[in-house]
Amino acid sequence: MDFNARALELHANYRGKIEVVSKIGIKDREDLSIVYTPGVAEPCRQIHAHREEVYRYTAKSNLVAVVTDGSAVLGLGNIGPEAAMPVMEGKAILFKEFAGIDAFPICLATQEVEEIVKTVKYLAPTFGGINLEDISAPRCFEIEKRLMEEIDIPVFHDDQHGTAVVTAAGLLNALKVVGKKLDEIRVVVNGPGAAGTAITKMLLSLGTGEILVCDEKGILWAGDERLNQQKRELAYLTNREGLKGTLRDALRGADVFIGVSAPEVVDKEMIKSMQKDAIVFAMANPIPEIMPHLAKEAGARIVATGRSDFPNQINNVLAFPGIFRGALDVRARVINEEMKIAAAYAIAGIIKEEELHEENIIPDAFDRRIVPAVAEAVGNAAIRTGVARL
Amino acid sequence: MDFNARALELHANYRGKIEVVSKIGIKDREDLSIVYTPGVAEPCRQIHAHREEVYRYTAKSNLVAVVTDGSAVLGLGNIGPEAAMPVMEGKAILFKEFAGIDAFPICLATQEVEEIVKTVKYLAPTFGGINLEDISAPRCFEIEKRLMEEIDIPVFHDDQHGTAVVTAAGLLNALKVVGKKLDEIRVVVNGPGAAGTAITKMLLSLGTGEILVCDEKGILWAGDERLNQQKRELAYLTNREGLKGTLRDALRGADVFIGVSAPEVVDKEMIKSMQKDAIVFAMANPIPEIMPHLAKEAGARIVATGRSDFPNQINNVLAFPGIFRGALDVRARVINEEMKIAAAYAIAGIIKEEELHEENIIPDAFDRRIVPAVAEAVGNAAIRTGVARL
Repeated sequence: MDFNARALELHANYRGKIEVVSKIGIKDREDLSIVYTPGVAEPCRQIHAHREEVYRYTAKSNLVAVVTDGSAVLGLGNIGPEAAMPVMEGKAILFKEFAGIDAFPICLATQEVEEIVKTVKYLAPTFGGINLEDISAPRCFEIEKRLMEEIDIPVFHDDQHGTAVVTAAGLLNALKVVGKKLDEIRVVVNGPGAAGTAITKMLLSLGTGEILVCDEKGILWAGDERLNQQKRELAYLTNREGLKGTLRDALRGADVFIGVSAPEVVDKEMIKSMQKDAIVFAMANPIPEIMPHLAKEAGARIVATGRSDFPNQINNVLAFPGIFRGALDVRARVINEEMKIAAAYAIAGIIKEEELHEENIIPDAFDRRIVPAVAEAVGNAAIRTGVARL
Repeated sequence: MDFNARALELHANYRGKIEVVSKIGIKDREDLSIVYTPGVAEPCRQIHAHREEVYRYTAKSNLVAVVTDGSAVLGLGNIGPEAAMPVMEGKAILFKEFAGIDAFPICLATQEVEEIVKTVKYLAPTFGGINLEDISAPRCFEIEKRLMEEIDIPVFHDDQHGTAVVTAAGLLNALKVVGKKLDEIRVVVNGPGAAGTAITKMLLSLGTGEILVCDEKGILWAGDERLNQQKRELAYLTNREGLKGTLRDALRGADVFIGVSAPEVVDKEMIKSMQKDAIVFAMANPIPEIMPHLAKEAGARIVATGRSDFPNQINNVLAFPGIFRGALDVRARVINEEMKIAAAYAIAGIIKEEELHEENIIPDAFDRRIVPAVAEAVGNAAIRTGVARL
């Protein structure tokens, strides 16, 4: 049976992947009277008297909503809320398996920014955190910003920040291998969508020397009137000299290529034009911007992709379980930039200096050291920046 | 340790009662690639092509949202969404334990009818059914009505219909014990809230001879201008002769008293004024309208309450698990009147004629025959009335 048929069969046999179970057995009337009426009244009264007690007496403290509107699902595009459900269930079980977090899929039948914001606000009492998923740009930026301002639990758009954290972790280690410094390199980011925007901002936070961002028309520059607000902001943040040109122009002399764009938009000539010891993160899925063997032939020293069948997989599962674990453990109000940076360094730090090499810049997803290390670093950053409530 | 302290400790020790787990193990990259990317893409594509395939490849077919706005929680009143969470979690685990249904608490931070309706509509893609819970009257009537018209999955307000179904089941058996017929009796319902309204309508559907409904001011009559629309509708449906008077007046000569109102509003004199072989369902919680021993002393032949420490407990857990199991199993679009009536007869039928007596008119909540019997009856009624999709 081929891979897709096996995946279908598995999903159908189990009727989905998540299950909601009781932590407490209910065998008799005595049990029933404690977990339901009349026993349940006392926790209700306590929470009514002191709202924060909801973290003590309910599942809220460990519950994350995986929220989508189905507008940008995997590489499949705007397939709607029902068709997004298998991805959200998958994400939910990764939360549980990797970090012990109870996560629940919420697939919304609206793609209006205002309605999504209101709905998530109304849902917030049940949850300890909100993971936004597969919501298309630029709507995802406004939804995330609004929610971060309006609710008091962490909101994290994984397609942006999860990808940015793992990319940054990989880049930190890649630079160690090639012996370059972050503040001396020039980076080209191709694809200013959700992921590309967050990667760019995180690399700036980390102190990257120079960044150019390209879309399908070429280098973003601030005077270009065709740009929407979000791309113009990126242009202002990055291209200080107002350079114009194509992706090919941008790559000439660059140290690092980061692609979150489209299959095979980079050729060997473009890689050859980069600096010595070029670093290529070709993360378009399932077909990268350039296949790893071609990039290597053209002189790239380190290549990473989003795929598990090549070395150096940039995989969000390295980040979001530990980030949420850390945020929930200290009851953080938000997941801020410092917490994300702490996560990136923690992921990078899993690989000891002596184990680092061209094909080992990022840890394996099943390395059980990752989540505790990330959670601790994120929790400490939350405490340091004053957003922890525990 | 006293009961409340034990309940608090249990809730705190487990940090709430629900857990979201994976049905499928994730041990290695191969597992990961099937349950998440890239394997998850094929179920997504299938659902995108044929939306009803969401029932095959996701957890939707077995998922129920337990939705509240925290406005009428137990006997505690309007305590808000956070404080309602222990009840909704409790309800969720009862769904799982009694009927194998995956249920999830949704405690909304709004009490606006329009906003609740919209939010539940937006949530509908994830769920196979909606259980409304602890939403105050009269808003609960409009919310339920609107949702039943606007979404294509079953919507069921348990405080109304669960209570009505179990009450009807108990009454059917009580009448067998005393040898009276439904179409010859006079019933007094005290408390025209969510439960009282649904009980009244169900007893009318079942062919009850005469019903008077009382609120705290007395018998509802259609010409009374102080009545809101919902109470006036009840008055029209029941009090055809336009009788006026107090609850005391209403009970004189009545065969059945059904109280879903307030503690100790009925005295022995009132019970004595009823017909011979009077049936008294005093369901106010935790203190009934009249204590069972007093009702018995005053001549009532059968007494039921909402409490587990007296005989004949009218408990919703007898109804909602089987009703949802039946509706989900045939993928019903709604839970209609015929399905509820079928549930009432199925619950009543669990007790064989020869086992029926004054203190055994309703089965025990832990009788494992109930859910299969109710589910089958409800599923068949759905098929018969054309609302089943399987």
